[in-house]
Amino acid sequence: MERTLIKNITEGRRRIAGFVENFRNKRTMAFIVVRDVTGKLQVTIEKEKHPEFSEMLDALTVESVVTFEGEVVKNDYVKLGGMEMLPDTMRIESIAEAMPIKDDSDIDCRMDYRWIDLRREQNKVMMQMQTTLTAAMRDFLLERGFVEIHTPKLIGAASESGSDVFEVKYFDTKAYLAQSPQFYKQMAMAAGLERIFETGPVFRAEKSFTNKHATEFSGFDLEFSYIDGVEDVMKMEEELLAYAIGKVKEKHGEDIERLFGIPVVVPTLPFPRMKLADVYRELEERYGYKVPDELHGDLTTEAERMTKQLCAEKYGHEFLFITDYDAKERAFYHMRDENGVPQGYDLIWRGVEITTGAQREHRYEILKKQADEKGLGQDVEFYLQFFRYGIPPHGGFGLGIDRLTMLFLGLSIKEAEFLFRGPNRLTP
Amino acid sequence: MERTLIKNITEGRRRIAGFVENFRNKRTMAFIVVRDVTGKLQVTIEKEKHPEFSEMLDALTVESVVTFEGEVVKNDYVKLGGMEMLPDTMRIESIAEAMPIKDDSDIDCRMDYRWIDLRREQNKVMMQMQTTLTAAMRDFLLERGFVEIHTPKLIGAASESGSDVFEVKYFDTKAYLAQSPQFYKQMAMAAGLERIFETGPVFRAEKSFTNKHATEFSGFDLEFSYIDGVEDVMKMEEELLAYAIGKVKEKHGEDIERLFGIPVVVPTLPFPRMKLADVYRELEERYGYKVPDELHGDLTTEAERMTKQLCAEKYGHEFLFITDYDAKERAFYHMRDENGVPQGYDLIWRGVEITTGAQREHRYEILKKQADEKGLGQDVEFYLQFFRYGIPPHGGFGLGIDRLTMLFLGLSIKEAEFLFRGPNRLTP
Repeated sequence: MERTLIKNITEGRRRIAGFVENFRNKRTMAFIVVRDVTGKLQVTIEKEKHPEFSEMLDALTVESVVTFEGEVVKNDYVKLGGMEMLPDTMRIESIAEAMPIKDDSDIDCRMDYRWIDLRREQNKVMMQMQTTLTAAMRDFLLERGFVEIHTPKLIGAASESGSDVFEVKYFDTKAYLAQSPQFYKQMAMAAGLERIFETGPVFRAEKSFTNKHATEFSGFDLEFSYIDGVEDVMKMEEELLAYAIGKVKEKHGEDIERLFGIPVVVPTLPFPRMKLADVYRELEERYGYKVPDELHGDLTTEAERMTKQLCAEKYGHEFLFITDYDAKERAFYHMRDENGVPQGYDLIWRGVEITTGAQREHRYEILKKQADEKGLGQDVEFYLQFFRYGIPPHGGFGLGIDRLTMLFLGLSIKEAEFLFRGPNRLTP
Repeated sequence: MERTLIKNITEGRRRIAGFVENFRNKRTMAFIVVRDVTGKLQVTIEKEKHPEFSEMLDALTVESVVTFEGEVVKNDYVKLGGMEMLPDTMRIESIAEAMPIKDDSDIDCRMDYRWIDLRREQNKVMMQMQTTLTAAMRDFLLERGFVEIHTPKLIGAASESGSDVFEVKYFDTKAYLAQSPQFYKQMAMAAGLERIFETGPVFRAEKSFTNKHATEFSGFDLEFSYIDGVEDVMKMEEELLAYAIGKVKEKHGEDIERLFGIPVVVPTLPFPRMKLADVYRELEERYGYKVPDELHGDLTTEAERMTKQLCAEKYGHEFLFITDYDAKERAFYHMRDENGVPQGYDLIWRGVEITTGAQREHRYEILKKQADEKGLGQDVEFYLQFFRYGIPPHGGFGLGIDRLTMLFLGLSIKEAEFLFRGPNRLTP
């Protein structure tokens, strides 16, 4: 017979399969709580009636995988939904050895056995919530005529960002792992694809041990043409996020609040926008924060964190667009206005930067000059070629899927990735 | 004013933007065909009326990017949809230098300037078709309770397949690039996620120069638990493909037939299934094909190609599941029946293998034995751990998105990837 998911269980003859959540083997009775991805059900066995189960019951352990068939009946004494199964067939699919970790084992130990750690309800909801988030973002963009691209992760030259790149032995030569799809999503603009997005891995060879850095994570990037300015990019991003967060709230809002204690707040539109200098001024006025002189053109980590409170008090909002950084602190490919102000922004959510976005400089001569000023002329030569044969004005941004997940649920990056990768972590 | 996409153009005042497809600059008139991602429109300029355009018209080149605003009117003499724009404002967004390639330049030359090559209508349709295909596959799976995962591409040990792996310099140690998410998607089964899929890059350090091999391509992988046998896996795959091909036909069938001369055929269900030995017998009977003795347990490339004709003649179908390979030719993690026959299959489309799928061996002792028999015990030690703490029976398969695209459109892999990567190709 077909298996029934536990959330769909009703009275009658059914087949269920799942992990053994709990197992009490008494003298005359055995009680097994079976857990599948949708819920839990108690299985009750009168041992005298089923001598054929006896050997299996003696072998059974917690977290083993079992299949049962039998009658599902109401029983008001059973806590789990007031139902239990009285099985007449039983099969052990897989026996579990003694668990090497517990729910409260430290994170590095849990990561050694990540596949066991992921069985916790929190982590199941995390994976489902991330699925909903990503699917909603894709749907939003497909609806608006975006196409999906897959840019190469093996690249011939170390790319743009300040972060270090991983070097790959590539037959008789060297390759590098892409730190971002930035150059290639702009290539798609030169290709006239007009609106593209990509989900894919991003690699950063940084020896960082913070709770938000990983050497590999999942990026969600997009780029689109024929914008009138950076405001178009911010508008796309706030609408995208409001839509996707709405979907997450709808499907997982209750679970997230119950399991993580964090409400999912669908942001109102538009998100607040502030210039960097105004952020600093208000942080000083309100909270006495003194920004170090040499950092006036960039957002310090401490100020970033403090914007959470500022944003809540000033706007009753969780998101904040910060604009008007110093050109010295921004990538050479951000367009600058006539006063040299970069036409880009960072988006901060709950005091953590989640995006850098910008209108890109699409005029070859100016772009080349800006690259040369940063001493990058040679390194980005291949990229500059994209601008010589016609290219529309364009802009875009990138989001880290794991970082968003982390912020949704109040986790560290180690907990928010399916399988974390860091300077000291390549396994399992 | 807001830009209008050319496919939506009607009479009245409009703004359009796009590449210059064609440009004739006569003494009194200028004719510019503007191309955006949705279509083409003629822009007609009476030069005497617009002396302010004169400098721009002198500078303008084919493939430059322009924006025009003005009245769109009917004109029966204009071939493109019987409409033209009479602009009163003109802006050049980007000037194109002389094109370095032509439509009929050889493929390697076109790849040096891939962003220009991608501007051809065929390639635009290719990217859109691939987007539709992937979105439809994801929708199909989301509808059936699958969650999306992102498995690490940086791995600590060279993994399972026979193909060579790329080595990465990872701080003071070495890492490798994942050749497939196989082990990690099975880890998700041990984690109790039950049904998962992933789209992500796959890396193969093979020095192959065929028209279907690349060192990096986009994989679409899935895995699901509580199957009763490999038949469940084949059923999932045929339904997935029939659904996704249906969506491609609906949205792009006409374009694909017009531009590539290949009809999109939505396959009937179920797909035909044949045992390998029967394939060989029929190839011999029908076409006199003699399989080399030592290859009886595997499908030769020539036989693979010939199944296209066999499949058409015998079943009137483009797809063929081939089962019952020799265990010596299959991965150690394929489950085998009591006679030692692997519970896996290859799926062939139009004479090319597109998938290997299987029920996986989930019983630790048997799996370990099968790994040892292939001399892999040590290499797959970390993977074997996934099977010691409870794991459901499961199976799955993987598809190459680029290979599917290639077969849909009758292209080589170089033409079917956004940006091809091969042993001699790391740029642009």
